[in-house]
Amino acid sequence: MLAFRVLRSDPHTLARVGIIETERYRAYTPLFMPVGTLGAVKTLSPEELRELGASVILANTYHLYLRPGHRVIQELGGIHRFMGWERLVLTDSGGYQVYSLSLLRRVYPEGVEFKSHLDGSMHFLTPEGAIEIQEALGSDIMMVLDECLPYPSSEEKAAESLKRTNSWAKRGLSARRGKGALFGIVQGSFYPHLRSRAVEELVEMGFDGYAIGGLSVGEPKELMYEVASLTAALLPHEKPRYLMGVGRPEDLVEAVCMGIDMFDCVIPTRNARNGNLFTWSGPISIKKSCYTKDPMPLDPQCTCYTCRHFSRAYLRHLYLNGEILGLRLNTIHNLYFYMRLMEEMRRAIAEGRMESFKREFLEVYGGDHGEVSGEN
Amino acid sequence: MLAFRVLRSDPHTLARVGIIETERYRAYTPLFMPVGTLGAVKTLSPEELRELGASVILANTYHLYLRPGHRVIQELGGIHRFMGWERLVLTDSGGYQVYSLSLLRRVYPEGVEFKSHLDGSMHFLTPEGAIEIQEALGSDIMMVLDECLPYPSSEEKAAESLKRTNSWAKRGLSARRGKGALFGIVQGSFYPHLRSRAVEELVEMGFDGYAIGGLSVGEPKELMYEVASLTAALLPHEKPRYLMGVGRPEDLVEAVCMGIDMFDCVIPTRNARNGNLFTWSGPISIKKSCYTKDPMPLDPQCTCYTCRHFSRAYLRHLYLNGEILGLRLNTIHNLYFYMRLMEEMRRAIAEGRMESFKREFLEVYGGDHGEVSGEN
Repeated sequence: MLAFRVLRSDPHTLARVGIIETERYRAYTPLFMPVGTLGAVKTLSPEELRELGASVILANTYHLYLRPGHRVIQELGGIHRFMGWERLVLTDSGGYQVYSLSLLRRVYPEGVEFKSHLDGSMHFLTPEGAIEIQEALGSDIMMVLDECLPYPSSEEKAAESLKRTNSWAKRGLSARRGKGALFGIVQGSFYPHLRSRAVEELVEMGFDGYAIGGLSVGEPKELMYEVASLTAALLPHEKPRYLMGVGRPEDLVEAVCMGIDMFDCVIPTRNARNGNLFTWSGPISIKKSCYTKDPMPLDPQCTCYTCRHFSRAYLRHLYLNGEILGLRLNTIHNLYFYMRLMEEMRRAIAEGRMESFKREFLEVYGGDHGEVSGEN
Repeated sequence: MLAFRVLRSDPHTLARVGIIETERYRAYTPLFMPVGTLGAVKTLSPEELRELGASVILANTYHLYLRPGHRVIQELGGIHRFMGWERLVLTDSGGYQVYSLSLLRRVYPEGVEFKSHLDGSMHFLTPEGAIEIQEALGSDIMMVLDECLPYPSSEEKAAESLKRTNSWAKRGLSARRGKGALFGIVQGSFYPHLRSRAVEELVEMGFDGYAIGGLSVGEPKELMYEVASLTAALLPHEKPRYLMGVGRPEDLVEAVCMGIDMFDCVIPTRNARNGNLFTWSGPISIKKSCYTKDPMPLDPQCTCYTCRHFSRAYLRHLYLNGEILGLRLNTIHNLYFYMRLMEEMRRAIAEGRMESFKREFLEVYGGDHGEVSGEN
């Protein structure tokens, strides 16, 4: 299903370089997964994603289940053929979107009932159903159905929810029929002993990898780091660790040092479409009038297609006039930045200098640029 | 400035294959120019346009004058550097957009006063100003400022307007300072003797090429063909002939047989964004529910990037969900279709079989698929 090996551990942090391997493809970690909500990373072609060096795309089960429907994609040969992507696809369980998008939801021991945000139709998603849908899609890495709590939640509520989430994890594992890998999701809100219990029970069940869920839900940044860090430290060394829905470049650097191997986030793509662009010396907004006649590339240090061919003035012009080409060029640049950041980190870890990389990166990039975004 | 040579004439129609050459680039005719209104062909990168085989892009002077301004583009090194396009750029004079987009316009002997459709600001465009703007942009092929009449217009009004248009043409010619080529525009509404007078006077002035303007303004298709045909026949053999703002695939085939060398139209790009796609057996709408599970490429005969990689089902899914990738893939397909159509016609003319090409194309493609669109 999925083989994971740690190739090198950094001597001064908990960071590690690893490799995830399936029959289809092998990918080096730590890695960042661009979000392809509806079977397309917004504005980009599969060819461009390959050129950017993406090895895993995240697709949203909730969205694909509603349209075009997992059975349609299955009939068409699966998600890879559907979207023309021959590398890896990770699918979430749909649970997070039920929590964040659907008009109404009710959680039962059996599963979760929700109302589609598209047409108001009612649906019932069970842990078994979530696996069935993901297998129909042909996902390489599936996620169990979980319950994601808001921040803050009481300890009692968190404990009760965790019990349900872990029982769903077990049912999801039993429901698997195919050869897709399956990850458990560690919940437990912001209570260390619940996180610890969650890890214990999930590891006992035995998953191909472990995700840290329930973060980036409105908590202070320090608390997010704290819980991510303590959870990561509890997880087994020999399995991949995935921090869901995180985050900004500085968050990735911090989390890699905690031993996280996988990330997904809409920030690079969504910010690109809003004209908010990453550079190695911090984010900039291309809207600003100071760029009106600026002949420089977005980031003089960057060698992406956008920076090799176009000026800030042109990008600003495209953005202000709503030209789709601008959204594309911005997206290419931001994802290139994220991909290079991960590559630089893999190299730093391999060379045993992740600690100084982190220090130097944060010094130049700046520490905190606001807006911790949630999952998609 | 611009050299044009007819390389081969078809024996049974008035079609000809030619070559347009400037210091920058050489392009074979008949050719189709994708419309890059604001310095970008909507959704596409310059790289994709090169791959599609585009040799000339049309940019709209009216739009670029208003934003970002021709002086900004000049400071940034001209339109080619601005948009990253090293092949040819043809600019219109801005007159047509003043006529079709501006909130208010008043024509004076000196020029045309108009109100910006963006911010309501007032502007005054003269024949000399139109050349100055196009030279500041760094256009390879410029157009003189003309007046475009609605259909129908009285003979008296058409004659008066023609007089003004031709005096503007003369002033435009005198205003030229740089080495950009300059085309005259034949007006004269739908009155053959006015068209004839227009040609006579413009040829006397001596332009690098001649455009046929004032068509596709709401007249019946037959009338458009009639006036285009009689005007084309009057134009000098040794200069390129450009039919502005036309048209649908069947119009291009008809007009090539009249001896037209150059075309521009928003149809392939705009229709793409509306899900209306060209195939060799006629246009289709990708919205239709019959494509929900259709694993076939858009046009099994087509070898464009879209048809080589994606199914109708995926394109429909992208379209229905407003995914930008869908707009891109549709645009690539439609422009590829137009580019291949022109290529096929050049080959047919070179081989002396344009008449049978036309017959066979129209037989399979179908004769009339509605919607004659105007210029941009």
